[in-house]
Amino acid sequence: MSTRTGTRGEPVTPANPAVDTVDIAALLERGRDMSAPVLRAAVDRLAPPMDTVAAYHFGWIDAQGRPADGDGGKAVRPALALLSAEAAGAAPEVGIPGAVAVELVHNFSLLHDDLMDGDEQRRHRDTVWKVHGPAQAILVGDALFALANELLLEIGTVEAGRATRRLTTATRKLIDGQAQDISFEHRDRVTVEECLEMEGNKTGALLACAVSIGAVLGGADERTADTLEAYGYHLGLAFQAVDDLLGIWGDPDATGKQTWSDLRQRKKSLPVVAALAAGGPASEKLGELLAADAGSNDVDTFSEEEFATRAALIEEAGGREWTSQEARRQHAVAIEALHGVDMPEKVRAELTALADFVVVRKR
Amino acid sequence: MSTRTGTRGEPVTPANPAVDTVDIAALLERGRDMSAPVLRAAVDRLAPPMDTVAAYHFGWIDAQGRPADGDGGKAVRPALALLSAEAAGAAPEVGIPGAVAVELVHNFSLLHDDLMDGDEQRRHRDTVWKVHGPAQAILVGDALFALANELLLEIGTVEAGRATRRLTTATRKLIDGQAQDISFEHRDRVTVEECLEMEGNKTGALLACAVSIGAVLGGADERTADTLEAYGYHLGLAFQAVDDLLGIWGDPDATGKQTWSDLRQRKKSLPVVAALAAGGPASEKLGELLAADAGSNDVDTFSEEEFATRAALIEEAGGREWTSQEARRQHAVAIEALHGVDMPEKVRAELTALADFVVVRKR
Repeated sequence: MSTRTGTRGEPVTPANPAVDTVDIAALLERGRDMSAPVLRAAVDRLAPPMDTVAAYHFGWIDAQGRPADGDGGKAVRPALALLSAEAAGAAPEVGIPGAVAVELVHNFSLLHDDLMDGDEQRRHRDTVWKVHGPAQAILVGDALFALANELLLEIGTVEAGRATRRLTTATRKLIDGQAQDISFEHRDRVTVEECLEMEGNKTGALLACAVSIGAVLGGADERTADTLEAYGYHLGLAFQAVDDLLGIWGDPDATGKQTWSDLRQRKKSLPVVAALAAGGPASEKLGELLAADAGSNDVDTFSEEEFATRAALIEEAGGREWTSQEARRQHAVAIEALHGVDMPEKVRAELTALADFVVVRKR
Repeated sequence: MSTRTGTRGEPVTPANPAVDTVDIAALLERGRDMSAPVLRAAVDRLAPPMDTVAAYHFGWIDAQGRPADGDGGKAVRPALALLSAEAAGAAPEVGIPGAVAVELVHNFSLLHDDLMDGDEQRRHRDTVWKVHGPAQAILVGDALFALANELLLEIGTVEAGRATRRLTTATRKLIDGQAQDISFEHRDRVTVEECLEMEGNKTGALLACAVSIGAVLGGADERTADTLEAYGYHLGLAFQAVDDLLGIWGDPDATGKQTWSDLRQRKKSLPVVAALAAGGPASEKLGELLAADAGSNDVDTFSEEEFATRAALIEEAGGREWTSQEARRQHAVAIEALHGVDMPEKVRAELTALADFVVVRKR
């Protein structure tokens, strides 16, 4: 069976000509446009002041309560949930409650993670706990999680029950992943396998759910849903590998994060972990530097040059190249999984194009 | 129709002789014993260190990880969930997943509320955020909430879907109630109606769910479930009125809280709100004192006498008596609701006896 990507970093070359004609921007916009009104109506159900706090988080209003047209993120998940319904032969509309439920769970996790991690900025704006305080970040996160389940279960069908079960399982993995991520901070060494497991939980599981939830709501059987989840899970790992690259070498103007963002936060992300595992002089030098950093508070006052030194060592030890190849490996496995599901060729081309987009994106 | 209680504070006099023979301790113990192994197995599913943190919260281990035989609370909810199954003619075992799911949601809310409220003690022990840090309190709370839904949905029946929907609705109300409770702290005045609405959300909704969830799992129709919820909701309001009395005048040895606990926390609980609404010299004097307290930090250093003065004014203004009567009013409405459901007389007597227990308890 031919795969569309190599494992040694050569460019992605589409095997299916239809993939080239997919308009990714339009696909993402459709997901955003079709789910947005339902998402807003769901958030409007929250009791004050939680509705306002949630509206701030989603970028619909600013900190003073004035209407805003914030950056709601890339909206890959809603696009996937609608395609998921179409993959099962249903209308894209069937996937909308799934798209909204997944977005609610994703944003529940962002609200809580930003507070736990002490992150002050998200999508170029102050995080909710900075603006509205920790209690509101906890409370509104809880409310969005509950709302996600409520939205699905009030459909009242057997399919909705199955969809909610998949969402709940994904949410538990998401929480496991955050627990692992936090525990890594307190450890000297993390293996590549542990890092991949954490990222699979933290990013793969919910993306997998986004790709199965529309199909389940559209009546797909469990095997089809599992296969779509395999695509989504590996797509999530590819997505996260790219995120880890952007977290060190991304353009701040594009990502909305600081330069060397993940190094500032001493994240044991894939490039770091892979570089430390690689062995050799650069790897050892990096290990010594990071061990010294771990025991000091100086990282907060590092110059750009000190971060650049660490980034260069990660690259020299092969961590950047390994992570880049890992993104392509996961991309290939994701595409491979799509072959296991019978679906309209148009939808297959769109899911393939979305996977390509995830790997080449700059933000 | 005869009710078993007056509305003017006379003692509860059972109309149903069978109620007198109910062994409340045995009923609570049954709920605890039958649900405990399933609860423990559910918590064991959590990834480290969340399993350990949850075990500490439930009192199974101490802060050093040594086995402990902690006070797991009164266990009214599990007892109700098993009776709920029996009310629908099912075996008590049918209610077990419901009992455990409700306990998980209850404890999710305790973990998050203790952190949001800054409460350092619960059940005579340091709270989770004090021992394991805020991040673990958030994370383990999230995990328990997800686990509750997972446990019910993996049953895979239509009934389980309906049960999960009721639990999710109750959880949303719980969160609404906590949001209202927090907002009250920043307000000078709260009406009795607002306070009752908040307590209905924060305490009534989940107790209502405990009383319906076993029946729903046992195949009860929606009307029966709604009627059982009415009993549980008003039982919850009675429970909370008693809690509010214990929060001011409770015996610290019995409650595990400090003397004048709710006054120390400046809680706008029912006795306070009712006293302020009553009018008259004591009410006005109380209003002046509390308004002055609100603007100062001296409350933290108040002597026992200063709290005693405020408690005496609440009592003089009629807040204590009103709340005591309110507990009996809600108790009567709860018992009344039971008449709307056809159930075995033994179960009716047990639900009635549990309602009596809730109103006369000292902890």
